[in-house]
Amino acid sequence: MSDIGGKWQAITDRHALIRFVDACLRGAGQVMFQNNPLSGLLILIAVFVGAAHAGTWYIGLGAVVGVIVGTAAALAFDADTASYRQGMFGFSPLLTGIAVLTFLPQTAWSWALLIVGAAVTTVVTLAFGNLLKTWGVPALTFPFVLTSWFLLLAAFQFHRIGTGALAAPALPEAVGGAAAHATIDAQNLSTSMLNGVSQVYLIGSWISGIIILVALAVNSRWAALFAVVGTVASTLIALAVGAEAAMIDQGLFGFSAVLTAIALGCVYYRPSAAVAGFALLGIVFTLIVQAALDTMLAPLGISSLTAPFVFATWIFLFPKRNFAPTPHHERLKDGVVDTGKNDY
Amino acid sequence: MSDIGGKWQAITDRHALIRFVDACLRGAGQVMFQNNPLSGLLILIAVFVGAAHAGTWYIGLGAVVGVIVGTAAALAFDADTASYRQGMFGFSPLLTGIAVLTFLPQTAWSWALLIVGAAVTTVVTLAFGNLLKTWGVPALTFPFVLTSWFLLLAAFQFHRIGTGALAAPALPEAVGGAAAHATIDAQNLSTSMLNGVSQVYLIGSWISGIIILVALAVNSRWAALFAVVGTVASTLIALAVGAEAAMIDQGLFGFSAVLTAIALGCVYYRPSAAVAGFALLGIVFTLIVQAALDTMLAPLGISSLTAPFVFATWIFLFPKRNFAPTPHHERLKDGVVDTGKNDY
Amino acid sequence: MSDIGGKWQAITDRHALIRFVDACLRGAGQVMFQNNPLSGLLILIAVFVGAAHAGTWYIGLGAVVGVIVGTAAALAFDADTASYRQGMFGFSPLLTGIAVLTFLPQTAWSWALLIVGAAVTTVVTLAFGNLLKTWGVPALTFPFVLTSWFLLLAAFQFHRIGTGALAAPALPEAVGGAAAHATIDAQNLSTSMLNGVSQVYLIGSWISGIIILVALAVNSRWAALFAVVGTVASTLIALAVGAEAAMIDQGLFGFSAVLTAIALGCVYYRPSAAVAGFALLGIVFTLIVQAALDTMLAPLGISSLTAPFVFATWIFLFPKRNFAPTPHHERLKDGVVDTGKNDY
Repeated sequence: MSDIGGKWQAITDRHALIRFVDACLRGAGQVMFQNNPLSGLLILIAVFVGAAHAGTWYIGLGAVVGVIVGTAAALAFDADTASYRQGMFGFSPLLTGIAVLTFLPQTAWSWALLIVGAAVTTVVTLAFGNLLKTWGVPALTFPFVLTSWFLLLAAFQFHRIGTGALAAPALPEAVGGAAAHATIDAQNLSTSMLNGVSQVYLIGSWISGIIILVALAVNSRWAALFAVVGTVASTLIALAVGAEAAMIDQGLFGFSAVLTAIALGCVYYRPSAAVAGFALLGIVFTLIVQAALDTMLAPLGISSLTAPFVFATWIFLFPKRNFAPTPHHERLKDGVVDTGKNDY
Repeated sequence: MSDIGGKWQAITDRHALIRFVDACLRGAGQVMFQNNPLSGLLILIAVFVGAAHAGTWYIGLGAVVGVIVGTAAALAFDADTASYRQGMFGFSPLLTGIAVLTFLPQTAWSWALLIVGAAVTTVVTLAFGNLLKTWGVPALTFPFVLTSWFLLLAAFQFHRIGTGALAAPALPEAVGGAAAHATIDAQNLSTSMLNGVSQVYLIGSWISGIIILVALAVNSRWAALFAVVGTVASTLIALAVGAEAAMIDQGLFGFSAVLTAIALGCVYYRPSAAVAGFALLGIVFTLIVQAALDTMLAPLGISSLTAPFVFATWIFLFPKRNFAPTPHHERLKDGVVDTGKNDY
Repeated sequence: MSDIGGKWQAITDRHALIRFVDACLRGAGQVMFQNNPLSGLLILIAVFVGAAHAGTWYIGLGAVVGVIVGTAAALAFDADTASYRQGMFGFSPLLTGIAVLTFLPQTAWSWALLIVGAAVTTVVTLAFGNLLKTWGVPALTFPFVLTSWFLLLAAFQFHRIGTGALAAPALPEAVGGAAAHATIDAQNLSTSMLNGVSQVYLIGSWISGIIILVALAVNSRWAALFAVVGTVASTLIALAVGAEAAMIDQGLFGFSAVLTAIALGCVYYRPSAAVAGFALLGIVFTLIVQAALDTMLAPLGISSLTAPFVFATWIFLFPKRNFAPTPHHERLKDGVVDTGKNDY
């Protein structure tokens, strides 16, 4: 395996175009912290499978265009080479590409918006990388979230783009008893949990969820394990507190927790019993932040995207020097390097 | 007095449990910048008296559980010892405990939310301590505000928790003439002003207000004086500009100004005529920020909590190197140390 | 010319009052990055002409009072002398003065609010100057935006002030086809574009727009050129994507782009083909941010002011070390010094 890795490395060193393709594939994996082109390839397949199953295969194309434009923009802006090669400029634009086509009508106008949005996402990535460097904290998927919020909110004011599948703006209302889960069905629940994994890429498909778990395991078994922990824990807690059943079924309470679980459980801290405890508190907090953002964004008709993961993980990473026993700090630094996560 | 202080210090040095109780009591005082267990004890009594008077004595219990969980979480997270002993990890969780039981129905679910929320408040305290250290500016009660906003907004999405006493979300409307004060009644006005002091702890009781003023005077007469200046000035100005009478009566235009007055008047700057002028501008600005946040949060049904104090005081502390004549800068540093306010 | 400049400099060095007037005039110019008292004088004339034409000449007076109070506050707070003399403490308060009288009823109460607001704007300028110094990024007009948002939102809660010309809060709705431009009329379009220039000062008058372009050209032809590029590009794009015709006509889609174009095109980067490309992407993004903020602020009834310029320009300035080829970085530093833009 490491031999194959070495050969692939040598090939990418020689050919600029293959290097670019490699950077794009790694970008697909970096959404979930995996600096591995094979993981990225499997994830792109998962996205296409899920999108095609929902009759919107062009969303897969949007992901590919997003990652290509974002990565090319990094080249144009003369960004840091090491980060470029690790796919650090591809993962947020990839998600921007998916979000535009998921929430807005697919027209020539929305494709143009997607391309501009993907390029701007790379500028935002550079901006937040520089901003957060002060504290050694990563931007995570926030460049995607911020740019996509702007694009989706802007669609209201541009008649030729239109608001498409965005929810109608409404004042928040408390979830009623009828909308909360009455009974638990183990089979339904397991598809909900797998949907929770695929929703990281805005796809609600349990098959895609399984492919994504495989893509994680190819590069890091810890990552696959914590992804499962994240979606299982958050789905069960959402069920316990009486969250809306339809949202649980689609995995919408799972995806942010999946990312928090991986980030806190095995990327920025070294796995241990204590860290698992911290990560669990982080998962619970992610669920709270997500519910809060759902309430907050209701009057605007937009979704919270992966913001709950970003906000909760930032809050659990910022205190790093005090938060965990000493050995973890070193891991924090190592982790950043190991997984190819740098300042961005 | 200093002899008693010395003996108490020696006792807390020897016994970990008494040290913990001492840290919790100081936490109750640190909401108002008082690093003094006696002030904290008096304040807890004030909270219980006010809560019991309103038929919600369990809110006092929520305050105690909040400060205990938050302080214990700091121990578990191996946080800075000096800050721990000064009660710096207790004051925000104490307020989170009060807020959860004030705005949400009291059930087993909300108590569980309170405990999780108090622990998370300590993580947020560590995060913002680290973030704001860059500029030497304190986090004030923002960890309480941010965490409580998340908890209260999340309640909308969780049927088993419910929204309880939260206001119904509504688009903002301009205050009508009928709702504004027509006549001034000196007696009513003085209870309104005392309510303004107790509302720092979300309690509307003039008796609690008096006890809290005593608690301040025990440790710092300047603090007691500026608390009075804050509530008197902001109540009179709110009256003059025609704010809603019912809110003035409950002291809801006073509490943030009380905290701003203490912070700017005698904690972070050394008391003087010039500083009193600065503090007065800060009080006026706090009132403006509070009215603005009331408008802004109307569509979400949540209250501004102590955010007006935090935002206004941050804005008046951030320019510190330019803002005040040179001698005050030293005081700024001293003040932080003197009152036990450090980076958090 | 430089001889006249030298003599004027000598006169201001000698007389404190003329120095103050000079600082105020430069403040009027610094809204658009022009450190030149003649530009400032022409701009004040443009503001009075536009205000008088709309029957609200007192708005011009509000601008003058704003810049005087803000600049005097900087003296009172003992702020940095070099920045004071370059008008860096005048430009945001000037805009606050205009905004208060544009959106709120003109009464003794709103004049009092204007004076407090202008003084607070200077505190906010000092605060954000200190905050953003960490990254070497300027506060731009954000102190104006933040303070004015607080003042306008607060007006809802104060009966004696009232909400005046603020829009009625409403949930956002997608722009319908009827409201979007059907036909293009070259003459209408050119007045719309000139309105876009004058709207930087919240004035919708093509005559004012022309005077302001002259004011720019007096100090920097590049600035005048990029102002034209900004308003032409953003008006045409707004037209293409089907933005609301009435807003385009008033120049409301132009002013933020005008500021972004000047900032990115010739102030913080040295003019070149590559930089023009960057600036164009920045203009497009400014338009997107503006549309997004219009949607976001609809439930609150307030306008986005120059926030779209600030947010977009920050995002395009923050990555500076990676964003542009090396020579531009130096320009970035020079630009800041050359134009008198420093930390604030």
